[in-house]
Amino acid sequence: MLNHLPIGIFDSGVGGLTVYRALHERLPNERFVYLGDTARVPYGTKSLATIERYAIENSRFLAARGVKLLVVACNTASALALPAIQKAIKIDVIGMIEPGARKAVETGAKRIGVIATEATIGSNAYAKAIKNFNQQTEVVETACPLFVPLAEESWADEPETASIAAKYLSKIKEANVGALVLGCTHYPILRDVIQETVGASVKLIDSGEAAAETVDNLLKNKNLANLTAAQISRQRSLCDDLDHFFVTDAAERFARVAERFLGSQPARLEAVELWGNDELRTN
Amino acid sequence: MLNHLPIGIFDSGVGGLTVYRALHERLPNERFVYLGDTARVPYGTKSLATIERYAIENSRFLAARGVKLLVVACNTASALALPAIQKAIKIDVIGMIEPGARKAVETGAKRIGVIATEATIGSNAYAKAIKNFNQQTEVVETACPLFVPLAEESWADEPETASIAAKYLSKIKEANVGALVLGCTHYPILRDVIQETVGASVKLIDSGEAAAETVDNLLKNKNLANLTAAQISRQRSLCDDLDHFFVTDAAERFARVAERFLGSQPARLEAVELWGNDELRTN
Repeated sequence: MLNHLPIGIFDSGVGGLTVYRALHERLPNERFVYLGDTARVPYGTKSLATIERYAIENSRFLAARGVKLLVVACNTASALALPAIQKAIKIDVIGMIEPGARKAVETGAKRIGVIATEATIGSNAYAKAIKNFNQQTEVVETACPLFVPLAEESWADEPETASIAAKYLSKIKEANVGALVLGCTHYPILRDVIQETVGASVKLIDSGEAAAETVDNLLKNKNLANLTAAQISRQRSLCDDLDHFFVTDAAERFARVAERFLGSQPARLEAVELWGNDELRTN
Repeated sequence: MLNHLPIGIFDSGVGGLTVYRALHERLPNERFVYLGDTARVPYGTKSLATIERYAIENSRFLAARGVKLLVVACNTASALALPAIQKAIKIDVIGMIEPGARKAVETGAKRIGVIATEATIGSNAYAKAIKNFNQQTEVVETACPLFVPLAEESWADEPETASIAAKYLSKIKEANVGALVLGCTHYPILRDVIQETVGASVKLIDSGEAAAETVDNLLKNKNLANLTAAQISRQRSLCDDLDHFFVTDAAERFARVAERFLGSQPARLEAVELWGNDELRTN
């Protein structure tokens, strides 16, 4: 019986906290173990081989702690390393790409935009996944490299961010898309300015919310949901001590950015080293 | 006789290329071996322990290849890890902080500004070094986290960059500094917009140029300069095949950004793994 086990989440850093929030909101009965690989962040500008290696180390760390399923809350790792992760551990793995693509196609939009990091866009993962659901859909993709540092700096409301968004999203706007996938976990932090830039008629797809829906369904289908609801407070809050956060570096900075993203700091936050442990090493 | 050996340079990524350029211009008779730790960039948001570990691995890699001295072309590693590096390898090590601080003090400015990454500013390394040269000097420091991604995106001439610079540098401007240290190797790429923002009367100090001066003096004092000048073309160009570049990841992206920074791509560029090699491991 795995029901009582927490759900594992990993991300390259703090961005995955938006996915944690979406999971937490949708699944108030579940506990979470979050790993932010802050020593090696960002993944978005790194190579396939390196991203795979980091993703496998992160996944093994969480699997070894006992989680009932793993959410890869990093679009870059989801786009490039999901098969490698699934091969490395025995539990179910849910990435960001397929849920986000499905939700975008479900809007019925004929043209779908995707914004993400350089590595995710370079992988074409979203375009492929969207075409898998509907061959007819047109996909317009564009990388927005400055969005991550802008989100981490809490510059969502600054005029420079609006101006940068206008530049990055001009191709998307011209293409008249019906839906736009926020294909990087940092982007929901900039949701308002992105929505204003592309116009109210464009449906924004938050991959984290889409993934939370997929996780919910999987827990139900596999009878993995936590049934001992009494164990979990009904009014539990984000970052309380039922959830456990690990980072590979700079815990203070993580706590600070977590507060900006979620409004509170993790009650349980621990720094760990992944690379010193031979069992976790991939070669 | 070590004279014929190249000079080692390491940086967390591409930023150190501005230091390579300064060294190359000042010392046309020397050859260089550059290591960009692109798999683990950036250092500016990481912790002391992690920055030390990475810096020692990088230094040992270059020392093992045979270099006559090592330039730590990364302000963050210079600010936090110089003693650890000097302990780990036997050759002379030159960082960015002391040369930059000395050059700033030599301007005679009573008030000196310093801009750098969060980690460098947090370390107070520049303020301490400046006070060491002149106890009377007032130091005004400020972190400019968005400058690195803006430089890497080649956004030096975009209006958003001017606007962001105005925001970051307002404290520096109000303080009426006489000199401003560009305490991050990416910042010379934004030199023009920074100069415009603070005004023409403020003397900008490029730590890379200052370090090149220090290296020049050290080579002369220790009789380490390369004397077989015939070996080196008098009209050699940046990134030609006399210089050797290594990166720990994503060589293609490095080559692309190098072209933006230097106007040409390295003739000899190789990807290496530092962490798999036990001899290079620090624990």
